[in-house]
Amino acid sequence: MTNTQVTLVQIDNYGPWTVTPEPRREADLQTMQSRLFADISQFVGSRDGYVFFTRFDNMIAVTNGLSVADHELLQESIGNRYPVTLSLGVATGTNPVQALSDATARLQEAGSAQDKHRREILEGRVIEDAHRTDEDVQIAHFDVIDATGNYTDELNAFDSFIEIEQGYAELMRHMRYSHDSLSFFVGGDNVIVVCPALEETDYEDAIYHVEEAVDVELQVGVGRGESAHDAGYAAKHALETCRADGTRVELGW
Amino acid sequence: MTNTQVTLVQIDNYGPWTVTPEPRREADLQTMQSRLFADISQFVGSRDGYVFFTRFDNMIAVTNGLSVADHELLQESIGNRYPVTLSLGVATGTNPVQALSDATARLQEAGSAQDKHRREILEGRVIEDAHRTDEDVQIAHFDVIDATGNYTDELNAFDSFIEIEQGYAELMRHMRYSHDSLSFFVGGDNVIVVCPALEETDYEDAIYHVEEAVDVELQVGVGRGESAHDAGYAAKHALETCRADGTRVELGW
Amino acid sequence: MTNTQVTLVQIDNYGPWTVTPEPRREADLQTMQSRLFADISQFVGSRDGYVFFTRFDNMIAVTNGLSVADHELLQESIGNRYPVTLSLGVATGTNPVQALSDATARLQEAGSAQDKHRREILEGRVIEDAHRTDEDVQIAHFDVIDATGNYTDELNAFDSFIEIEQGYAELMRHMRYSHDSLSFFVGGDNVIVVCPALEETDYEDAIYHVEEAVDVELQVGVGRGESAHDAGYAAKHALETCRADGTRVELGW
Amino acid sequence: MTNTQVTLVQIDNYGPWTVTPEPRREADLQTMQSRLFADISQFVGSRDGYVFFTRFDNMIAVTNGLSVADHELLQESIGNRYPVTLSLGVATGTNPVQALSDATARLQEAGSAQDKHRREILEGRVIEDAHRTDEDVQIAHFDVIDATGNYTDELNAFDSFIEIEQGYAELMRHMRYSHDSLSFFVGGDNVIVVCPALEETDYEDAIYHVEEAVDVELQVGVGRGESAHDAGYAAKHALETCRADGTRVELGW
Repeated sequence: MTNTQVTLVQIDNYGPWTVTPEPRREADLQTMQSRLFADISQFVGSRDGYVFFTRFDNMIAVTNGLSVADHELLQESIGNRYPVTLSLGVATGTNPVQALSDATARLQEAGSAQDKHRREILEGRVIEDAHRTDEDVQIAHFDVIDATGNYTDELNAFDSFIEIEQGYAELMRHMRYSHDSLSFFVGGDNVIVVCPALEETDYEDAIYHVEEAVDVELQVGVGRGESAHDAGYAAKHALETCRADGTRVELGW
Repeated sequence: MTNTQVTLVQIDNYGPWTVTPEPRREADLQTMQSRLFADISQFVGSRDGYVFFTRFDNMIAVTNGLSVADHELLQESIGNRYPVTLSLGVATGTNPVQALSDATARLQEAGSAQDKHRREILEGRVIEDAHRTDEDVQIAHFDVIDATGNYTDELNAFDSFIEIEQGYAELMRHMRYSHDSLSFFVGGDNVIVVCPALEETDYEDAIYHVEEAVDVELQVGVGRGESAHDAGYAAKHALETCRADGTRVELGW
Repeated sequence: MTNTQVTLVQIDNYGPWTVTPEPRREADLQTMQSRLFADISQFVGSRDGYVFFTRFDNMIAVTNGLSVADHELLQESIGNRYPVTLSLGVATGTNPVQALSDATARLQEAGSAQDKHRREILEGRVIEDAHRTDEDVQIAHFDVIDATGNYTDELNAFDSFIEIEQGYAELMRHMRYSHDSLSFFVGGDNVIVVCPALEETDYEDAIYHVEEAVDVELQVGVGRGESAHDAGYAAKHALETCRADGTRVELGW
Repeated sequence: MTNTQVTLVQIDNYGPWTVTPEPRREADLQTMQSRLFADISQFVGSRDGYVFFTRFDNMIAVTNGLSVADHELLQESIGNRYPVTLSLGVATGTNPVQALSDATARLQEAGSAQDKHRREILEGRVIEDAHRTDEDVQIAHFDVIDATGNYTDELNAFDSFIEIEQGYAELMRHMRYSHDSLSFFVGGDNVIVVCPALEETDYEDAIYHVEEAVDVELQVGVGRGESAHDAGYAAKHALETCRADGTRVELGW
């Protein structure tokens, strides 16, 4: 049984900020959003968590191993270095969607994302060290079989992108509705999915489903661990086995 | 008639690099990819272009106003500061998809994205200053009507994301296949589309199509200009008119 | 009695890298050096340490609270994201200069800074958690009295800089030779000094010495703590007392 | 005869910002200052200018080639992405100190660096393109002969730093008072000096003076050009000749 700790990272009042006193240069917004995400990735990642850019003004992180004090420090540090501030909602659950729902509710209860006055909320609970186990997090790392040969070197770059986007969209919905999992495109042809305690057949079904629906062929390596990094790194190694052996699903335990 | 200059930015041999000698920490890959994109956004953006993160190892930019020397300098600067290098293909065309196809072909002809030896290709043509006009670029900036009220403050953060992702996926395919346009999610509930010379009815059709297909309500501001920034900034202002007046389509000229 | 843990951070083979295959653009070197320092500052700082840019290819950090595993992770993360690698030497001592000497020796014994083959050395010892006390680190934060009124708003910017540089150079030598302390200019008119267990009179002497030697008037706040951040933050507050009360030396305990 | 265009970059109201509402974490200030400098280095550097971190809240740049519009854009972009804003004063002169004095005066006349209300000043004049020549900028790149062998691999890292700092301080004062030049430590054992039209004997005297005064042995490569990059890159190549041939002064023309 998993016990995922999920943090929702939301920029306070971002929409209005981007157009006040008038719209800001798009290239600057892209730069700031990306660097903010990169900094959160370093903070969370160096504590063995994962954060996904998601919508950039709302980012989802798996933060098993991060304490409340860690969350406070992240908030303070960003507030010292950026023209925006963050609100953070943290929750845990036996499936990632449940944890994320509770984390979201924490922020929604404190106020709207565009509330003029809601700033730097920090609400929620973390998993105490004594209660952590090495099955708390399950991560599946999917990629497209030979994306370079089938898409990148063959199609124009946008059509390659459409193919991968279709595969991602299909996998994302299937994993969320059938398996209470959260799926994130992380670049290239890679999708990382945060799962509850799924079985090998669940992954086979997911791959079959995506191939049938949109004709995109996936393979997947799965890992478990006490943290997102532990689980995710095991998943990366399992995926290397898929690549080496030509298998479609490999479990890292 | 538009004349879009498109640059495909491709990291050389990235897939192999991420797993050699063994897989790298995911949080570090996310950080590096995002900061690389942010740097390219500053370089291109300060010359009035736009770049979109797309797949991060393949990024698409609208570079009207950037010369071949500018492209060389970008390549050199990234090579001095990152552990990876870039190949760049540049092309122009009366519609963005055509330009992007030619830009892609420039790189594909030089070698595979994972070719052990292909490094720092720079191929293509730019628009000479004398031939630039203020109708060269047309940009449409779509967003979801009251995403905060309908999604962000109501659903869990991943279900909000799914809604926006669905709207994006539908718009992206429609605009590419019906209008030779390139659509990019840029954060929040915003999609920026690089278009040929489309009419108001084309945008009304796109909005109607997305609403019918996936029940996501969009509005759009459209701008034209000599550069992506000129067109895009006019589009942002037009979108503010939609927000203020409750209209669905506003042209900035 | 203090017990300072000092880490010497040295870029491997940096001199040769900057000119191979030929000299690199200076602006790119400045960017990379500064961003590398900034990243180390975030990693060390979020663990309550301090790092000083010093010579950029050699940076000195006060790392009480960072474990050997933390040092390994820093090294790995930088190696994943930069075109250079770091070697780290860690040591502790009852005075900062002694600790820094031992940390330096760790690297020197492993090989030259420009040794073609020496890469990513990690040598040394950290203070075990059980042995840490809230007097381990003493930090003094000096600044120039009314630098804005006396220099910034009056002299040209380089002559202001020369005045502050003179004050720093004098203080740096005095504190090193008379008090085994390490002094670092940190921007503006601020100098942060890492000290052993000094007395109020030692600080009064230092201020008097600098005023006599180069006619630069300093004030100082001093703090103690288990970590550089704890000591340094107390020092900042003590400095605010100097500013408010017009005193020259304030101890934060 | 040189014609140096110098820009003084000053953060508005920085001192007060760093302690309001209370002192900020030092590591965050170091990170922000360094990344701000790095961004300015990219903006200025990609237009063939140089910027030096100097005091971080006051930075000095050689901006031959940058227009007023470029300065405006830099200001706007930083304002969009940082929690602070910049004021810029630009001036030109037949010697760098004169240009820098005029640039400083532009800001001082607009208001104090800590003026509650002074924000984003942009005052001054640039060199029109038609008036630029390839002798406008003269740059000398000094370094310490075999710093690695004499200092880095021999002394503790702070004592190495003291030696280099002494050499820099001596050179800085000599070049400013005897030759109206601006000297900047740029990392390692390197000092870049922005000069008027000096002769080979002036550089020989400077080297002799520093050796006599503080026993630090320097060598120097000098370059001229239309921009800081052109002059500085020629200087780097000339310095390589010193290293290869064992000479003390090499002119790149």
